[in-house]
Amino acid sequence: MKARIIVTLKTGVLDPQGKAIEAALRSLGIEGIDSVRQGKVFDLEVSAGDGPAAEATLRTACEKLLANTVVENYAIEIL
Amino acid sequence: MKARIIVTLKTGVLDPQGKAIEAALRSLGIEGIDSVRQGKVFDLEVSAGDGPAAEATLRTACEKLLANTVVENYAIEIL
Repeated sequence: MKARIIVTLKTGVLDPQGKAIEAALRSLGIEGIDSVRQGKVFDLEVSAGDGPAAEATLRTACEKLLANTVVENYAIEIL
Repeated sequence: MKARIIVTLKTGVLDPQGKAIEAALRSLGIEGIDSVRQGKVFDLEVSAGDGPAAEATLRTACEKLLANTVVENYAIEIL
């Protein structure tokens, strides 16, 4: 089955990459975008059993590798 | 209004970062994840008018800055 994990910075954590994108958009003359925050997305192909088993595997992957839970949130979607 | 842009590699484009993650997951003993592809997510705060106007602005931002449309697809969600 397919799954998507989205990792985003927690509210309040500074995002210099997002700020750089905001500045680049303005310098390209693209108006009307007030703020940008960048995150990561992982598209996964999972063979670990049914829904709950797959979700448990994905949660472990997030906690151990994909997200730094001190400063990042993650969301798991089974597609 | 809030919007989310998801940028992913096109099918067939090699993703060494995804391969590295697959190997790292295996080395951590996490089984059952067969393939990983990494992409980017941008969470934006848009003030550019209503729905269609905002979407046009976001499409321009994707084409000019956020996605390399030679090797990447992008999807815009207005939240």
